[in-house]
Amino acid sequence: MSDPPFDRSLLADSSLSEDQRIDALLNCLTLDEKVGQMMHHAPAIERLGIPAYNWWNEALHGVARAGVATVFPQAIALAASFDTALLDRVAKAIGMEGLAKHRDFVRHGDRGLFKGLTFWSPNVNVFRDPRWGRGHETFGECPFLTGCMGLAYCTGLQGDDVDHPRVAATPKHFAAHSGPEACRHGFNAEVSIKDLRETYLPAFRRCIIEGRAMSIMGAYNRLNGEHCCAHPWLLGQVLRDEWHFDGYVVSDCGAIDDICGDHQLADTPAQAAADAVDAGCDLNCGETYEHLIEAVEQGYLSEADIERSVRRLLRARLRLGLLGIDRSTDRRPDINCVDSEEHQSLALEAGRRSIVLLKNDGVLPLPQPIRTIGVIGPNAADTAVLCGNYHGTPSDPISVLRGIRETASSQTRVLYSEGCDIIGRNASDQFPPHNLIAEAVGIAERSDVVIAVVGLNATIEGEQGDATNADAGGDRKDLRLPGLQPELLEAVYATGKPLVVIVLSGSATDLRWADRHAGALIQAFYPGQAGGKAVAEVLLGKTNPAGRLPVTFPRSVDDLPPFGSYAMQGRTYRYCDAEPLYPFGFGLSFTQFTYADLSVSNKHLPIGRQLEVRATVTNVGQRSGDEVAQLYLSMEASFPTPRYDLRGFKRLQISAGQSCEVTFMLSPRDLSVVDQQGRRFVQPGRVRLAVGGGQPDPRSQQLLGAACLQTMVELHGEPVRLDP
Amino acid sequence: MSDPPFDRSLLADSSLSEDQRIDALLNCLTLDEKVGQMMHHAPAIERLGIPAYNWWNEALHGVARAGVATVFPQAIALAASFDTALLDRVAKAIGMEGLAKHRDFVRHGDRGLFKGLTFWSPNVNVFRDPRWGRGHETFGECPFLTGCMGLAYCTGLQGDDVDHPRVAATPKHFAAHSGPEACRHGFNAEVSIKDLRETYLPAFRRCIIEGRAMSIMGAYNRLNGEHCCAHPWLLGQVLRDEWHFDGYVVSDCGAIDDICGDHQLADTPAQAAADAVDAGCDLNCGETYEHLIEAVEQGYLSEADIERSVRRLLRARLRLGLLGIDRSTDRRPDINCVDSEEHQSLALEAGRRSIVLLKNDGVLPLPQPIRTIGVIGPNAADTAVLCGNYHGTPSDPISVLRGIRETASSQTRVLYSEGCDIIGRNASDQFPPHNLIAEAVGIAERSDVVIAVVGLNATIEGEQGDATNADAGGDRKDLRLPGLQPELLEAVYATGKPLVVIVLSGSATDLRWADRHAGALIQAFYPGQAGGKAVAEVLLGKTNPAGRLPVTFPRSVDDLPPFGSYAMQGRTYRYCDAEPLYPFGFGLSFTQFTYADLSVSNKHLPIGRQLEVRATVTNVGQRSGDEVAQLYLSMEASFPTPRYDLRGFKRLQISAGQSCEVTFMLSPRDLSVVDQQGRRFVQPGRVRLAVGGGQPDPRSQQLLGAACLQTMVELHGEPVRLDP
Repeated sequence: MSDPPFDRSLLADSSLSEDQRIDALLNCLTLDEKVGQMMHHAPAIERLGIPAYNWWNEALHGVARAGVATVFPQAIALAASFDTALLDRVAKAIGMEGLAKHRDFVRHGDRGLFKGLTFWSPNVNVFRDPRWGRGHETFGECPFLTGCMGLAYCTGLQGDDVDHPRVAATPKHFAAHSGPEACRHGFNAEVSIKDLRETYLPAFRRCIIEGRAMSIMGAYNRLNGEHCCAHPWLLGQVLRDEWHFDGYVVSDCGAIDDICGDHQLADTPAQAAADAVDAGCDLNCGETYEHLIEAVEQGYLSEADIERSVRRLLRARLRLGLLGIDRSTDRRPDINCVDSEEHQSLALEAGRRSIVLLKNDGVLPLPQPIRTIGVIGPNAADTAVLCGNYHGTPSDPISVLRGIRETASSQTRVLYSEGCDIIGRNASDQFPPHNLIAEAVGIAERSDVVIAVVGLNATIEGEQGDATNADAGGDRKDLRLPGLQPELLEAVYATGKPLVVIVLSGSATDLRWADRHAGALIQAFYPGQAGGKAVAEVLLGKTNPAGRLPVTFPRSVDDLPPFGSYAMQGRTYRYCDAEPLYPFGFGLSFTQFTYADLSVSNKHLPIGRQLEVRATVTNVGQRSGDEVAQLYLSMEASFPTPRYDLRGFKRLQISAGQSCEVTFMLSPRDLSVVDQQGRRFVQPGRVRLAVGGGQPDPRSQQLLGAACLQTMVELHGEPVRLDP
Repeated sequence: MSDPPFDRSLLADSSLSEDQRIDALLNCLTLDEKVGQMMHHAPAIERLGIPAYNWWNEALHGVARAGVATVFPQAIALAASFDTALLDRVAKAIGMEGLAKHRDFVRHGDRGLFKGLTFWSPNVNVFRDPRWGRGHETFGECPFLTGCMGLAYCTGLQGDDVDHPRVAATPKHFAAHSGPEACRHGFNAEVSIKDLRETYLPAFRRCIIEGRAMSIMGAYNRLNGEHCCAHPWLLGQVLRDEWHFDGYVVSDCGAIDDICGDHQLADTPAQAAADAVDAGCDLNCGETYEHLIEAVEQGYLSEADIERSVRRLLRARLRLGLLGIDRSTDRRPDINCVDSEEHQSLALEAGRRSIVLLKNDGVLPLPQPIRTIGVIGPNAADTAVLCGNYHGTPSDPISVLRGIRETASSQTRVLYSEGCDIIGRNASDQFPPHNLIAEAVGIAERSDVVIAVVGLNATIEGEQGDATNADAGGDRKDLRLPGLQPELLEAVYATGKPLVVIVLSGSATDLRWADRHAGALIQAFYPGQAGGKAVAEVLLGKTNPAGRLPVTFPRSVDDLPPFGSYAMQGRTYRYCDAEPLYPFGFGLSFTQFTYADLSVSNKHLPIGRQLEVRATVTNVGQRSGDEVAQLYLSMEASFPTPRYDLRGFKRLQISAGQSCEVTFMLSPRDLSVVDQQGRRFVQPGRVRLAVGGGQPDPRSQQLLGAACLQTMVELHGEPVRLDP
């Protein structure tokens, strides 16, 4: 067979349309070559000058697994900032570093794993249950917050020029994916159409429609019996027909193999591969698509089906400059943007903005100067914990211990004890759990205040196969602080010294003891490379915290439905009536805010019109600080609706004694409800609106731990059906 | 059975002798109680007010495994200082921290593992083969250096009051223990009596006789067929009869079980335990001695045999204040000595003194100010590598990367890439080895100088069961830098930028490439908590290095005898003729020294007299610096003797342009030789003496890479037999 004619300069020929250029290349490829391009480590086609490309790269909160990169706070922490402008800046920085690193790698001949431009982030799965090990990769439990954050991530990462994205974003895992990890390769998520349309799909929809994400990743699990990577309804009707997605779909890694493996939905790899391509999964992270050649030979698929996917993949590579033709936009950014001072500062700022103050009886900020600070706990000196999972290498990570040492006055002595190890295991089976509680108590006695840094890390909550928490495959069985941490806290508390508890974890832990006994309690998540400095600044009053919980902290795992159930009833702030320990949206400040003058543009709103909501927020305390104003709706309907649903939030910076007016604009979609058949309506009836610094308490109708104003709006007119 | 009468105040009754007090207590104990005291976690005897005691503690280079403690450089690094005064100060600091921590633990009710006063250090095994995984715990390959360092460690740790030691030192592993790790529980070391007396035993002898070590640990292996923990010759004749040891012998952990396990030297645990006690092993780290009750019942042992051991153990506890009666000497030190500024400074000083400069073509010290330093390599940012094994928790460890960043001028930009991971494995089997060579090359291109920090760590060279280097059970199969490190070095070298290679490892690696290509090469071992700062100071000329290799760096593993062979022929600088890459005793300075005026007190020395050796050392360079003056002997005999044997060393601090006289005093024992029957003599004949900054080269009769003077002394008179 002689080589088909191909002129590489065609790829850069601006007189041709994108499709013409792609087809010119596609027409030159053999079936083998086409299929080769559909797996994540696509080989070079040397006779055509097409370089190899490895599609797999990660950038959840910084360019990951490819050496030094700025490590921003973990996704769950970024969500706690309730700050989409911050997300946008963070994602832009990630995109710039990703592009700069890719170009530097290619310049040095490295086109390997984790060196490309197609980033398999963000994770916009709803964090439906705190036991899920990968919840810290998400933006929390609220579809609205997740959608806002996911959108800001996608647009920030890809850049402003939608036709020439800087790099590619890939929302994942599509859809209804949130554990259990241990059985993820064979699990069937049974989800009602209402829960899908109301809870599991909206964030994906925003990333695709508004965020113009170039790609999307199919999940490992089945959704109502069909595999997410071979799901005609999900990948066809929803993604392509309703959302008009024109990018490519990639499978989770090894997921195609699972179709004929644990899921037993196909008899052979060829059939599994054919089912996936047929449904619309264009790229296989894995090797199973090598069987597509058999699949064509056996008549499961036509070569045209193959070409449909390859065309999408080549379009992405053309747009990203990955076909051996540089894009003009690629001249910048320079490699020096990676880990630059500007990005280091942004990581610190993001760390500061992510910290949630859960309790403060006045012990914080610490008085200055303070003579001796005792820093104890298994997360105090650790730097790996700052990074969560899916992270790059920070060039100079700052642990909480180091942050305190460097931020405190030079007159302050800082004492340290690990106290115990994080999970109650030692390096060797020969030894009992590492017990340094006596050391920690001794340090507490010699200190003026004790900072206990406890929690989890990414070896305890994580991904099937990665986390060492083998008894639950990466998930947790309960919310208890693991190992000897509860005993450690009780022992240092018994010294009578003021106790500040700092929790580094990506999800809710059982903080009932700390809520009762600690003088102050901080949830700092996995706060990124400068997280220890950010925490220290809060302790010492150099930063006024304003993060808010993006997840409910339940009192107990007993308040949760069975982990394997995907029904929303009883889950998250939207559908759970049990009183939480700390509610979604909660977080304190060193100052106080009041709300006044709640007004709406129209108390009797015609269906189809926008609604403007205004309120005045005043900092009535003595310090400048940020307030996260939140707007929740509660809808009347003949079918179940969320107790409350976040529909707006704004992070406001307000000086002491100053006021600020906050405005929310609600679209008809914001005012819509989803019925049991998954249909989305705006319908006549009453809407309760609550505006304040947190979520309304259904019992008291007051905001939990925060000021709150409420009002009622009446929608009237004929019901209007919206896209679901 | 009614309780025997016992008045606890007897234990503190100064009108009674130590033996009387011990016997008063011993006479109250039942056989069960006696046997209970012979295992490492000795239970309390509550009816007598005797507290529980866990004998197992570690302090190889700082109090280990018990929380925060000053982490000094690893033992092999301390040996490289060639500085016994430093060892003495380090060991004193360790002993003080150990005592202070123990008292603090006890005050808080913790008498658990690693909280006691009986430290199972130093490791004075001869590092006979660089492949041994635990070699970095030792003071190197030279019996004389090992003896000097071990002695300084024991006396420093235990303190000046030999009757009331601060804590207990435990030289280990007695004797002839140096791998292979994988089969250590069943290995038989076959060692000639000459090699034992000349090489394997002398350091133990000094620790016991001169150092008054309170205890000694028996090894896992057999020695010439008998288990080291049940070895009548070793524990009886040598230790008790020849060396007059009056302390206690402890088994390595699980070693008694091995006697009837892998070694198959006893049929039952009772027999194994009886054999060990009978031979003189008083304390079992492990549980096997619970069978001693059966052993007595079955007639293997008498209760008097049991009492002999218990008496030794109670004597140690009485002297250490571990019987519930405080010692007056225990009022000090205060807990604040732990991790004190003084000890932190000492750790830094020890780090500085341990660093060995192997090559310098003039690139060091780095010119100041320097614009950009590229720091690359898997050991650059790591802090665990600073600690080697058997270590405590440093409160603020300084990696090489951090050390450079903090020591360099604020105008200097420091760039970093890991380059590759240390062993060429990734966290998951799913991924290929972490390859960041392209990133490192990019950084090299943007830098004015490249500092490559490579080597090993304690997961690669370590102990059976601990090190993850499973293919050789903790040992190494060859000396190659593992993983992609060689490729990394070659790639950054190819950029043409000046390259400084820093090796963090506890043993020799194959440095032939670096010797040829690097501008400078530094062996920094595992340099302790402040090691990164010490290395940075050398790079930037703030510290002038003067460490010396305590082991030979061979050119290749092909120059070594089979690993399992304990014959010294062909091993170490004393018995190997192959030209090394870097010899024992070698190390460069930023200045130069010359030697002159070598003189001896008597060129024709009567046997039995001391010999004084003098020389003048002059710093002829432009900087102040330390010189390690070394004295080697080569003896004529009718049987094989070492090529050269170190018999003196002095670390001298000499200002630029200044001179210093160095004196060595050689005793008859220093001038003795050991024949094939293991007999030690001083005999008539010629002795060649070499004094200089390193080891003499047998080919050129010049010191390798160092100034050297030589002379000859004639011993005359009748041969004199010495204790072996």
